[in-house]
Amino acid sequence: MPAEPECIFCRIVDGSAPSTQVYEDDDVLAFLDIRPLSRGHTLIIPKVHASGLSELDPAIGGKVFQVAQQVALGQRRSDLGVDGVNLMLADGRAAMQTVFHVHIHAVPRRNGDKLNVASRLLLRRGGSSPETAALIREGIGRPAADG
Amino acid sequence: MPAEPECIFCRIVDGSAPSTQVYEDDDVLAFLDIRPLSRGHTLIIPKVHASGLSELDPAIGGKVFQVAQQVALGQRRSDLGVDGVNLMLADGRAAMQTVFHVHIHAVPRRNGDKLNVASRLLLRRGGSSPETAALIREGIGRPAADG
Repeated sequence: MPAEPECIFCRIVDGSAPSTQVYEDDDVLAFLDIRPLSRGHTLIIPKVHASGLSELDPAIGGKVFQVAQQVALGQRRSDLGVDGVNLMLADGRAAMQTVFHVHIHAVPRRNGDKLNVASRLLLRRGGSSPETAALIREGIGRPAADG
Repeated sequence: MPAEPECIFCRIVDGSAPSTQVYEDDDVLAFLDIRPLSRGHTLIIPKVHASGLSELDPAIGGKVFQVAQQVALGQRRSDLGVDGVNLMLADGRAAMQTVFHVHIHAVPRRNGDKLNVASRLLLRRGGSSPETAALIREGIGRPAADG
């Protein structure tokens, strides 16, 4: 039984809703966004429900960010061809928050992809594959390249 | 003498470049963006130089995020009339990083401000006032409202 039965992310945490997982530890879960702004777009969430920053335990918030950092580095070291990453968090409807369970977006960027990402912002398309998640997991496990 | 003499944020940390400060502790500094996307737009940075996420000590990263959380809540509780906040981080030129010292943007949002913020993204204008910073500091010190 999820902590907040109406919350899709709580249902993903307890396994009653599906997700394509990228990372998991005791406090934090990361999985692919089902309407990615770019290939590999990942969401990093606290397992404990918090609708927004005002409900988020700062200790957990720090851990969520540390996982977001790891995911971003994993994306960059992966074979997905990632040149940069945007981390983004929306707190409140005015900031375009749509799911009221805190989440950090890790959006892989490629050189020259601005128009592509912008058009997907307007028209979010479906798509998240186990292959993409596997490539990011592999990147997370990969040591930093020299130079 | 700043840690990295060529880095504008290191110069802000050591006081050899000016900034309008919002928050400071041993590891983290927050100050107003000089070309704000909206009134109160704040940057949160580690005091120790790290050009990007790959150089950032995760322990420090967690603290930077915790301060960003506090700043966002302070913005929302302030008298600046903030309805929501976007936290954003750009890692790498492809993600539109322009200053190569890690920073989290805390961008106050107001209901219906989408076009205004979007136009400022295209045409960044100057503006950061001590009054705005004082209002955010006051918000940070303010307890959460009930409800």
